[in-house]
Amino acid sequence: MLLNTISSKGLAHHSYLVGDQAECAVIDPSRDVDRYLDAAAAAGCRISLVFETHRNEDYISGAQDLARRTGAVVWRGESPAYNVPYARVISEGQAFGFGDVRLTTLRTPGHTDDSISIVLRHLATGDDPIGVFTGDALFVGDVGRADFYPDRAREVAGLLHDSLQKLLTLGDSAIVYPAHGAGSVCGSGMARRELTTIGYERANNPKLQLDRDAFIQAKLGEHHEMPPYFRRMEQANAHGPSPLERLPDVQATTVNAASEALERGAQLLDLRNDQAIAGASIREAIAVPSDMLASFGGWFLRDDRPIVLLLDRSSDLQEVVRTLVRLGYDDVSASVAGGFEAWSTAARPVQPIDGLDVHELKRRLASREPPVLLDVRAPDEFESGHIESARHVYVGRVAEAVDSLRTARQIVTFCGTGRRALIAAAALRRLGLDDVAVCWGSMKAWKAAGYPVTGAKPQ
Amino acid sequence: MLLNTISSKGLAHHSYLVGDQAECAVIDPSRDVDRYLDAAAAAGCRISLVFETHRNEDYISGAQDLARRTGAVVWRGESPAYNVPYARVISEGQAFGFGDVRLTTLRTPGHTDDSISIVLRHLATGDDPIGVFTGDALFVGDVGRADFYPDRAREVAGLLHDSLQKLLTLGDSAIVYPAHGAGSVCGSGMARRELTTIGYERANNPKLQLDRDAFIQAKLGEHHEMPPYFRRMEQANAHGPSPLERLPDVQATTVNAASEALERGAQLLDLRNDQAIAGASIREAIAVPSDMLASFGGWFLRDDRPIVLLLDRSSDLQEVVRTLVRLGYDDVSASVAGGFEAWSTAARPVQPIDGLDVHELKRRLASREPPVLLDVRAPDEFESGHIESARHVYVGRVAEAVDSLRTARQIVTFCGTGRRALIAAAALRRLGLDDVAVCWGSMKAWKAAGYPVTGAKPQ
Amino acid sequence: MLLNTISSKGLAHHSYLVGDQAECAVIDPSRDVDRYLDAAAAAGCRISLVFETHRNEDYISGAQDLARRTGAVVWRGESPAYNVPYARVISEGQAFGFGDVRLTTLRTPGHTDDSISIVLRHLATGDDPIGVFTGDALFVGDVGRADFYPDRAREVAGLLHDSLQKLLTLGDSAIVYPAHGAGSVCGSGMARRELTTIGYERANNPKLQLDRDAFIQAKLGEHHEMPPYFRRMEQANAHGPSPLERLPDVQATTVNAASEALERGAQLLDLRNDQAIAGASIREAIAVPSDMLASFGGWFLRDDRPIVLLLDRSSDLQEVVRTLVRLGYDDVSASVAGGFEAWSTAARPVQPIDGLDVHELKRRLASREPPVLLDVRAPDEFESGHIESARHVYVGRVAEAVDSLRTARQIVTFCGTGRRALIAAAALRRLGLDDVAVCWGSMKAWKAAGYPVTGAKPQ
Amino acid sequence: MLLNTISSKGLAHHSYLVGDQAECAVIDPSRDVDRYLDAAAAAGCRISLVFETHRNEDYISGAQDLARRTGAVVWRGESPAYNVPYARVISEGQAFGFGDVRLTTLRTPGHTDDSISIVLRHLATGDDPIGVFTGDALFVGDVGRADFYPDRAREVAGLLHDSLQKLLTLGDSAIVYPAHGAGSVCGSGMARRELTTIGYERANNPKLQLDRDAFIQAKLGEHHEMPPYFRRMEQANAHGPSPLERLPDVQATTVNAASEALERGAQLLDLRNDQAIAGASIREAIAVPSDMLASFGGWFLRDDRPIVLLLDRSSDLQEVVRTLVRLGYDDVSASVAGGFEAWSTAARPVQPIDGLDVHELKRRLASREPPVLLDVRAPDEFESGHIESARHVYVGRVAEAVDSLRTARQIVTFCGTGRRALIAAAALRRLGLDDVAVCWGSMKAWKAAGYPVTGAKPQ
Repeated sequence: MLLNTISSKGLAHHSYLVGDQAECAVIDPSRDVDRYLDAAAAAGCRISLVFETHRNEDYISGAQDLARRTGAVVWRGESPAYNVPYARVISEGQAFGFGDVRLTTLRTPGHTDDSISIVLRHLATGDDPIGVFTGDALFVGDVGRADFYPDRAREVAGLLHDSLQKLLTLGDSAIVYPAHGAGSVCGSGMARRELTTIGYERANNPKLQLDRDAFIQAKLGEHHEMPPYFRRMEQANAHGPSPLERLPDVQATTVNAASEALERGAQLLDLRNDQAIAGASIREAIAVPSDMLASFGGWFLRDDRPIVLLLDRSSDLQEVVRTLVRLGYDDVSASVAGGFEAWSTAARPVQPIDGLDVHELKRRLASREPPVLLDVRAPDEFESGHIESARHVYVGRVAEAVDSLRTARQIVTFCGTGRRALIAAAALRRLGLDDVAVCWGSMKAWKAAGYPVTGAKPQ
Repeated sequence: MLLNTISSKGLAHHSYLVGDQAECAVIDPSRDVDRYLDAAAAAGCRISLVFETHRNEDYISGAQDLARRTGAVVWRGESPAYNVPYARVISEGQAFGFGDVRLTTLRTPGHTDDSISIVLRHLATGDDPIGVFTGDALFVGDVGRADFYPDRAREVAGLLHDSLQKLLTLGDSAIVYPAHGAGSVCGSGMARRELTTIGYERANNPKLQLDRDAFIQAKLGEHHEMPPYFRRMEQANAHGPSPLERLPDVQATTVNAASEALERGAQLLDLRNDQAIAGASIREAIAVPSDMLASFGGWFLRDDRPIVLLLDRSSDLQEVVRTLVRLGYDDVSASVAGGFEAWSTAARPVQPIDGLDVHELKRRLASREPPVLLDVRAPDEFESGHIESARHVYVGRVAEAVDSLRTARQIVTFCGTGRRALIAAAALRRLGLDDVAVCWGSMKAWKAAGYPVTGAKPQ
Repeated sequence: MLLNTISSKGLAHHSYLVGDQAECAVIDPSRDVDRYLDAAAAAGCRISLVFETHRNEDYISGAQDLARRTGAVVWRGESPAYNVPYARVISEGQAFGFGDVRLTTLRTPGHTDDSISIVLRHLATGDDPIGVFTGDALFVGDVGRADFYPDRAREVAGLLHDSLQKLLTLGDSAIVYPAHGAGSVCGSGMARRELTTIGYERANNPKLQLDRDAFIQAKLGEHHEMPPYFRRMEQANAHGPSPLERLPDVQATTVNAASEALERGAQLLDLRNDQAIAGASIREAIAVPSDMLASFGGWFLRDDRPIVLLLDRSSDLQEVVRTLVRLGYDDVSASVAGGFEAWSTAARPVQPIDGLDVHELKRRLASREPPVLLDVRAPDEFESGHIESARHVYVGRVAEAVDSLRTARQIVTFCGTGRRALIAAAALRRLGLDDVAVCWGSMKAWKAAGYPVTGAKPQ
Repeated sequence: MLLNTISSKGLAHHSYLVGDQAECAVIDPSRDVDRYLDAAAAAGCRISLVFETHRNEDYISGAQDLARRTGAVVWRGESPAYNVPYARVISEGQAFGFGDVRLTTLRTPGHTDDSISIVLRHLATGDDPIGVFTGDALFVGDVGRADFYPDRAREVAGLLHDSLQKLLTLGDSAIVYPAHGAGSVCGSGMARRELTTIGYERANNPKLQLDRDAFIQAKLGEHHEMPPYFRRMEQANAHGPSPLERLPDVQATTVNAASEALERGAQLLDLRNDQAIAGASIREAIAVPSDMLASFGGWFLRDDRPIVLLLDRSSDLQEVVRTLVRLGYDDVSASVAGGFEAWSTAARPVQPIDGLDVHELKRRLASREPPVLLDVRAPDEFESGHIESARHVYVGRVAEAVDSLRTARQIVTFCGTGRRALIAAAALRRLGLDDVAVCWGSMKAWKAAGYPVTGAKPQ
């Protein structure tokens, strides 16, 4: 049996290649489909089927491109309101076989109406399910979001509950292969572990300990961010995204040419690491460290303007381009040759963003003119414990709060470790605020130092 | 949680790196320990513990070297007759923790007296076992051999049965991480799949469907090959194998220098692929295609003489050297520069080994002077169906049969696919038989052609 | 200064990336242009110019595709009869600059009418030429062919002479960067060394020791093979080859599906190594070991039929596809999953091709019924020394000789090392001859054994 | 002919593998000799000779280790005062051959007494020198330092002159293969280009345009830095450095364990990039960005204390360890797991180093209380043009100047691009100065902005 996990790092998205030695299926391909073609070629295996377990909001599907390039057939669940021209509609219990490997469909709606799970059997050793690809229904330690149909919130939470119960009937011994892992925007409570089983989740997943009503209540009480690009992904995936023959060709560009592109409306995307951005920031740039791009880029980047990249290292280029393409940003026109050194030696303005450790933060907060402490974590993180004087605005939404911050003498941004705080600080700087500082280490350091936290839920 | 599988291909051996983000254990390291050090460095994780799940017969353990290079402590199970100076003896239920990862020992004797399993928990999500490292007790679709204590055969089969029952108590939902996969000499019925769970094996593993007596009877009825190097591995692993600072440096050598080395007693190891060996064979060489070296090299190579390599491609060198070192062949002195082309253009004698497809085999067997058909598969493969006139000798034991074959007009070697048949044919040629041919495709082709098979067990 | 050599192995073709840190030119790109884009991205350098030093016969140019994907301008020399729509015509002495790097054109016709050389200067250190890209005018130890205009043979030989004299005026210290190295079909006397200088060639290149008349006479006396695909390349390069968005997607295929494809007209291309092809040959396949594909594939493959690959290792796939695409074979539809093992275990017919070493060849030639010895080397190799009884037919032309060979009892093919002999033997077998054998080691072994050679030119 | 350049990036050091297909020599190996063994294995080539072109001050030689691991013989030039036990003394004109490749020695003293050059011939194509390995005698655009024997300064400058004249007799067409390229501490005027020829240097190298007296005068007038570790390298290379079985094993370590190591005397080496160090600096660390480590690490690191690494990315680890080992820092005990994020979230103190662009620098310099502008470039760079008010102290020597700087209100460090300025700023901070800032872009930006420069030599 062939079973490869192919992950998209920042998205914390897992896709799978599953089959026997000669033929296989791909489950939930991302848009840079060369990865699946290469993996199949290495395995000497033909891709003949593609499954989408559900409508995707957080990335653009590669199903259509993969089908076009391999002749594979795309299958997906039914959704009255979401007709996907490039796919066939799968029915409950529909079975597909490759040699002694068998895949069977389960309809598991709730996260979306068209959500399916795919049960894996290895007939060489028995008829029991050996695993199940659960899409966004069941994760390691969490379950899928159920907030995509706000006017049917209670109904879909119930649907998800019932789908999860259906998954439990597969038996404790089935291994769970979810579409996302820890770090995904598609859930917040996922465990930092790749694998789990139905039985383990039945016994330990907090959401699976609740009865139907309690489950619905819990889901209604959840708050998830809905980044602005979700709607765009959803539309693109419905109609079939524009074909992508290959990754965009990103040519190097001089600082001068880059500056001209910016004047003509391009966006400068500064992908250096957080400390480097703070050390010497470029005010006009959208600053998101490259390893945070998948999670936070979509909050700041526009999709109707070309993107010019500024990278720490040219070896990062390919992974950055893959991430952008997965999010539907195809117009990556250029990368600044020589990176920051070229930028600064061309006498372009740069300025530091002030930074402080938690000890200095504590001193300043205790001073007579304390700064505004802006905690940019997710609402549930904030609620689970914060510094007393902190004001909460989610990192992706600082633009909405900027007007109310203009009068502040100084703003210190704060998050779990300092990394999101830096993104927020750079965004505020770009929006015209001058005295912005970032707190390195943030809450994790604050706690390590033994400083007091307010509003922490008892654990 | 960090959980990496690091496999040794030909041995079908799996070792594991398991821990949290800062610290980890290695379970059953092979002797080329740089792999674990590199994986730990990539993960930014310190190796502080090493476990051996059992005494190893099929490869040399890297536990001692890994401990020496990292400061880690080696732990292993107790065995009265097998005192390992470099390790501490673990006790039942002994627990080790890395952050929220917990490892606990289970004594699971039977395969060997010192066999242990290691239960994995992820306290971040619950107290239930999420997995278990089963060593050579439980495999995917099979259980361990129990033939290493011939005078206690019944007793150890019973011990293995009880150990497996003990593993079943971990619950259906625990994932099984075995020390071997399909292709290993440590079992014959393993499924071609990496993962399984306790529950799946409980319900589907043929050996776990038997009661204690039937299990013992079944184990007593098994026949496993006991290659000559097993005893050597066992001894080396007991006393602590000689330290290996790094992989041996293998220099290129000219054909002339190689020939001189052979005259001084070195062994020429021809690692070309099977068809190439047949196309132009070197009579004096031990011929084992590189991807079969781990399984069959130990049957033919002596450990008291230097080895000179002849490779298809110089890029294979490192993997070949790793495989040899894992088997305790450290004296790999040289590799013939230019490979076969250099050998043949130096006017060294080469000859083809005749080859035939199954259609030609059928014709020859039906002729008036049919060849001797030598089936070199494992006994249980032979017993599950063979060509009527075939004579059985296991590929590793053809030297023992060579005298009885000298009178044969022609010998055709035969196996499952032709690959072991080629090794046998080359071995017979080396032992002085001239008219030896190999049947390409062998039993798989014979069946595909619809030709008759004798003695097949009903399925 | 940036100066990267990007070579196409089998073609022994060199292309170059040359520029400064921000911008560069590509000289003589092959059709798989991703290599140049990747190299430029790694260097953080924009490709803004593409040069073709001459009309290419031995591969398809990537100039047009590279221009399309980068916005670069293509420049090439003038040729009245060869109008290339995608390029601008360069004039003598035209200069291009990147920072302190300067490129200047020299018209150097002879190999082709449009041949140019490009002189490299590094103004940071001086005005003298530091190197020159000589295309197919001057090689290491040889000069270009001058046989592409048969009715103007004397004239173009003279043109080439004059162009070489012009190159000599650049001064002894200029480094020579040719478009081809040893092994190319574009010359036969190239030295096995990457680099040379104008001065070294002036003093040591045999062709540069001749006066104009002697040079012309020598060129007229040369014999070069003109493979059937040269004309096709020439045409494609003139009109602009069809755009190649990316390398073809080659899916794995089962033996059955491959067989069906062959019945519908596809060509099976057996790329295993020479000894493997001999050990178990597939009669219907075109057999060319993968590392000889660039030099010999074009003699045997048709460009109007799909190609199905049979590979030793799936890791060879990409390099094979690149080679085929460079030769204009874009319709590479599939690769047999499982390679030879799959083929043979599917009970498809295979047969060995007999092989003998030179000692056995000597015995057979001395026997009463000696085989026909077919020497398939190039004419000049044959003329420089052969076995007395040998008959000469070039490896690429055995099909033309097959009828005259049908009466032979046995044919033994023979070349420099046995490698081309195997290709010839397989081709003859495919054309219906049964008793064909290959001589391993061939002339190099024959000489090493001290056996007599006829017709050797005194050295 | 085999000719591979194997470079050590930061050192800008070139070593060479040269030979034919079966056997080769290594010229000037660095201490991480696995690179040569791997390259030779890939080429299928035996290493039988090792040459040292001169006594090395800037790195530890790998000659002894390479000889030990391959059986090769080490050859080097004669020096009365520098007896190297592991090498044989080569004599003028001594010749070594591999097939048609010939290496011949030229004594070329001056840089050191034992300096030799090695002339390369390819007899297959002619008797003329095709190249010459010039060690530290002749570089691309520069010649070697002649300041290692201060009391014989005039004499050795003359020796170097004569050696260079001797090299010129090899003829214009010989290609030059030097031991160093641009960026090396062994010369300051090297061109940013890999290759050159004797003829090109004869005509364009500024030093080769001078007569003997002028040459000596010029060399006497040069100023080169003599880092503190030169003497250490010299000694180690004389006696034979301690054998290095393999690269040191660097284990990950927690922040706590690292802190304990620091308390016991270990040095924390902060290898993040310059902007990151500025953004959040760790006062107690020696801060040198990883790509500057080879050039500047030796100025700050002690060789009698363990080193703990703090890296941007764990993938940098191997290259960093190689660089340290080349400089003789073998005691690399650990690397901080999780890097800066781990450090800051453990509530360890961090502080920014202030940064300014050249526009802000200009404003501050014009203010009433201008900062001290500390230009840390090499003396000749400073002399070729600086900002009027700048004070000069070389980056490696800021510790010597720190006392005189304690009274300054603010110090702004300044160099060519800002990169060395950051190293200097961090060093000053570590030495107790608080108000230190770095000027991003430094002189290159200053000039790009059109701001005035003093003392610039007319060009």
